[in-house]
Amino acid sequence: MTIYFDNIYLGKNSVVAGPYINNGPLKGHFDAIYNDFYDGENTFEDCEIKEAIKCINILINKYKDINIDIFLSTDLINQLVISNFVANNIKIPYMGVYNACATFVEEIILGSSLLNNKNINNVLCLTSAHNLTAERQYRNPIEYGGPKPEYATFTVSAATSFILTKEREDIKVESCTIGKVYDYGIKDSFDMGSAMASSAVLTLIKHLEDTKRDPNYYDLILTGDLGKYGKEIFKTMFYKEKGIELNNYNDSGVLVYDMNDKEVLAGGSGPSCLPSYYFSKIYNMMKDKKIKKVLLLATGALLNTTSVNQKKSIPSICHAVSLEAL
Amino acid sequence: MTIYFDNIYLGKNSVVAGPYINNGPLKGHFDAIYNDFYDGENTFEDCEIKEAIKCINILINKYKDINIDIFLSTDLINQLVISNFVANNIKIPYMGVYNACATFVEEIILGSSLLNNKNINNVLCLTSAHNLTAERQYRNPIEYGGPKPEYATFTVSAATSFILTKEREDIKVESCTIGKVYDYGIKDSFDMGSAMASSAVLTLIKHLEDTKRDPNYYDLILTGDLGKYGKEIFKTMFYKEKGIELNNYNDSGVLVYDMNDKEVLAGGSGPSCLPSYYFSKIYNMMKDKKIKKVLLLATGALLNTTSVNQKKSIPSICHAVSLEAL
Repeated sequence: MTIYFDNIYLGKNSVVAGPYINNGPLKGHFDAIYNDFYDGENTFEDCEIKEAIKCINILINKYKDINIDIFLSTDLINQLVISNFVANNIKIPYMGVYNACATFVEEIILGSSLLNNKNINNVLCLTSAHNLTAERQYRNPIEYGGPKPEYATFTVSAATSFILTKEREDIKVESCTIGKVYDYGIKDSFDMGSAMASSAVLTLIKHLEDTKRDPNYYDLILTGDLGKYGKEIFKTMFYKEKGIELNNYNDSGVLVYDMNDKEVLAGGSGPSCLPSYYFSKIYNMMKDKKIKKVLLLATGALLNTTSVNQKKSIPSICHAVSLEAL
Repeated sequence: MTIYFDNIYLGKNSVVAGPYINNGPLKGHFDAIYNDFYDGENTFEDCEIKEAIKCINILINKYKDINIDIFLSTDLINQLVISNFVANNIKIPYMGVYNACATFVEEIILGSSLLNNKNINNVLCLTSAHNLTAERQYRNPIEYGGPKPEYATFTVSAATSFILTKEREDIKVESCTIGKVYDYGIKDSFDMGSAMASSAVLTLIKHLEDTKRDPNYYDLILTGDLGKYGKEIFKTMFYKEKGIELNNYNDSGVLVYDMNDKEVLAGGSGPSCLPSYYFSKIYNMMKDKKIKKVLLLATGALLNTTSVNQKKSIPSICHAVSLEAL
């Protein structure tokens, strides 16, 4: 299902980055940073809430004056509790959304559709993640501190926020392809890159079919977050399906960290991985007209701890958005 | 924030009801029932997934032919894992949404906005809940089997599904008011009715202000799910704020169960409480033109087990939708 938008734009944005990502190749490109997982708070969760609120305040301060109508938000924590407390702080009409690490693009799809309503002019979107709120929830107590396989990814600690607007800006939301859920029978919850790679391939193929485009239509096709191994699976599978080698492709999971750091394993993941890379790097390249057309493929692994303990496989999803510099 | 819709209608719907609700006043009004919490499956979760898929299949079979473009879904389980597995089964482009028990109306807001897109014609929405998947997750192991206070509510086990469409139907989505998050400092996770009542009052007042309407504009104002005590708080607070006694008001939490059954305590809750009552009773009254204008106020308590254990208070939200029989 591909939908097209006429006058929807990416407005200003901000990224607040935590440990690891802030020591990687994006260093110096963030709006603010924090250097330890508490940042003066008593819990990891309060730290994550604080950084997310800071991120939104930085964004709002980039405008002289802005009236935000709706707040869409996501995070990895059960019942979106980080988003809920952020919404309680900022007091903007709020709706929570969740497709795991694919939610960044889910927000663009829903936010752009909300802007079709006459009296909605600006939608604020947030993605929040914190490595240790996620580790506590997904791996404590069983695997806590245990060694992980090298194909495991490492949740990016960052809050990213951005405005979707009807006001003319430099980058346009051109079209979105909403993905279906697929399940390839993968049961290893560390191996999310493999679980998600095929969904990314299927959504890319669907997007190209619906829009009658060639991969080379885009200056860049960027997945997030497949990681080192998922990225190779994605390229191989796409070649097998379409006979085309992608030479304009990369994955944000392998680009956000210094991959020489053994701790980050197969690379970044989490709902903030793709947007923190996009807004810190690609967004600016688009503003500077260095690249014009970008396709983002946001992938999500749709598990929880109960489904993993019950030995169920890991379904996955991928949503695509085509962004154009004007 | 109130938005108005021109040509968005509530299409067909279906309700599959589990134990307790099926022994209450709505008995005989459901599309299908199940009588024990496994219904032949090995886990509570697989039972919940099965009933949700059944609910959707019943709904689709009510149409001769329907092309569904998007699937919006919610449930109470961490990372929306029930919805994820349902989406994997039905293979319709999927987006997960979450505002706790307020999500029914969140789905109407987002689904109606998606229908503003040219090539989206039918949106399928699902709410799923199962008393024991919820109990396992929220109260196991600490409170499991322990006595509960009488102001606690009892999660309604039911799947409800419905179509939002551009095709003319008998009931119209007239307007929606999107709520903000409020926090009244309540920390007792059993006392969700009190936590949510004030949010319901504030959203009702905002809706009436934005639309310049009197409560009597509506034939029925229905909250869900405040329960026996939350309902009284709601009425008292509204009277205190506006000096108006609501005589066209009720709460679905106290209407879905036989309230003589001590096990259901202060009444029903969960994302399926309001829609299962609405679709089994009020929807048909509207189709038969017995009542014409209905305002639904869906309330959500935005906690998780970690936030409760960390002694944080419980923020809450309420979204409103005005439905009109044509």
